[in-house]
Amino acid sequence: MDTPFAKEPYVIGIAGGTGSGKTTFSRELVATLMTNKIVYLSHDSYYRDQSNVPFSERVKVNYDHPDSLETELMIKHIEKLRAYQPVDIPIYDFVEHTRAKETEHIEPQSVILIEGILIFAVKELRDLMDMKIFVDTDADIRFMRRLQRDIEERGRSVKSVCDQYINVVRPMHEAFVEPSKTYADIIVPHGGRNRAALDMVAAKIKSHMDANE
Amino acid sequence: MDTPFAKEPYVIGIAGGTGSGKTTFSRELVATLMTNKIVYLSHDSYYRDQSNVPFSERVKVNYDHPDSLETELMIKHIEKLRAYQPVDIPIYDFVEHTRAKETEHIEPQSVILIEGILIFAVKELRDLMDMKIFVDTDADIRFMRRLQRDIEERGRSVKSVCDQYINVVRPMHEAFVEPSKTYADIIVPHGGRNRAALDMVAAKIKSHMDANE
Repeated sequence: MDTPFAKEPYVIGIAGGTGSGKTTFSRELVATLMTNKIVYLSHDSYYRDQSNVPFSERVKVNYDHPDSLETELMIKHIEKLRAYQPVDIPIYDFVEHTRAKETEHIEPQSVILIEGILIFAVKELRDLMDMKIFVDTDADIRFMRRLQRDIEERGRSVKSVCDQYINVVRPMHEAFVEPSKTYADIIVPHGGRNRAALDMVAAKIKSHMDANE
Repeated sequence: MDTPFAKEPYVIGIAGGTGSGKTTFSRELVATLMTNKIVYLSHDSYYRDQSNVPFSERVKVNYDHPDSLETELMIKHIEKLRAYQPVDIPIYDFVEHTRAKETEHIEPQSVILIEGILIFAVKELRDLMDMKIFVDTDADIRFMRRLQRDIEERGRSVKSVCDQYINVVRPMHEAFVEPSKTYADIIVPHGGRNRAALDMVAAKIKSHMDANE
C-alpha cells in the first residue's frame, strides 16, 4: 500500500431508526475528534439511480426498503477506501427522486464512518465494519422528531407524515431496522448527544488513529 | 489531594441481570487493560450484616432486592476512594448468610470499577459514576447460564433453581434491574466477551489513565 498509514482503516457503522439521533451522534463524534482524517459515508447517497424511470413512478420508491439502495456499490467503495484508494460517491437528488449527474470525490483516510438506518441489514456490508453502533431511541420520541423535521424542514402536513409513518416507515423499521440491532457491538440509548458514549467511541477511534501514524 | 494523580478517579459502573455476563465483561476489561490501577468493587460485598438475626431467618433474605444491600456504606467508600483515600470493604459469607469478621483493605487507584445487578437502581450510587454500562443478554440465555452455574458450582437441584428464579429472581429483575437500564450510557449486547465493546471501553479508560499520570 502506498499510504502514510501503518494499518488498515478502522470502519465504524452507525445505525438506528429514523429520528434516533444517529446523524447527530455521527456529527458530534466528528466534532469531538476534531480531525479531518475521517471519511463519512451515508447509505442515503446510494439510493438507486432512477433516471430511466418516469417521474410519476420514481416518487413511489420505498426509501425505507433495502432494495431502494445500491448497497453493492457502497460495498465496492468501502473496499476501495479500505485499500486507501479514492472513490467518487454518488449524490442523490431527493427532489428529482434520482441520482444527480455529479459525484463527490473522496480521498481515503484512516477512519471510515458509515451511517444509515439499514447498514446492519446486509451481511456483506456489516462484515466490513470493525465496530457497529446502534443508536436506540424510543419509538414515540423518534416519531415526534421525524414529525417536527418533516413539517418544519420539508413543509409536509401532519396527515401526510402520519400516513407515511404508519404505512411505510414503521413496517419497514419493524421488518429490517429493529431486527438488525442484534448485530450491534454496542447500543447507545438516549440518542445523539449521549456524552459518555460519544467520549468512549471517540477514545477508541483516537487510539486507532494514534497507532496508525 | 496528596496523590500521584492529576485528576479525580474515573468511576465505571457495570450492571446487568443475573447471567448477563457482566462479571465476565469486568474481568475481560481488566485483563485487556493489563493494569493494577483499577479498584474493583462488587455490590455483593455490601450485603447487610445479619449477625444479630437467627440463622433460620437469615436464609430467607431476598438477595435480589435493593434493601438487602448496605448501599449507603458502598457510597461512602466510593466517595473516599474518589478522594484517593483507602477503604476497608466488607466480605460477605454466603454460607453463614452474614458479613464475615474480616474486611479487605483497598488502596485508591485512578480507575474505580463497580459491578452489580442493582447499581443503577439507586440514584445516589448512579450519580457517582462517570460511565454506566449495562450488559444486556436475552432472558433465556441468562436463565440457562444461572441454571448451569447453580447446578455445577453450588450443587443445587433443577427444581430449586427454577423455583427461586420464578418466585424471586425474575420478579426482582422486572421490578428493579430492567427499569434501571434506562440510566445506562451504553448497552453492551451479547454478554461478556463482546470484543468490540471491550476494546472501546478499554480505550476510554486508557485515555483517562494516560491523562492522569
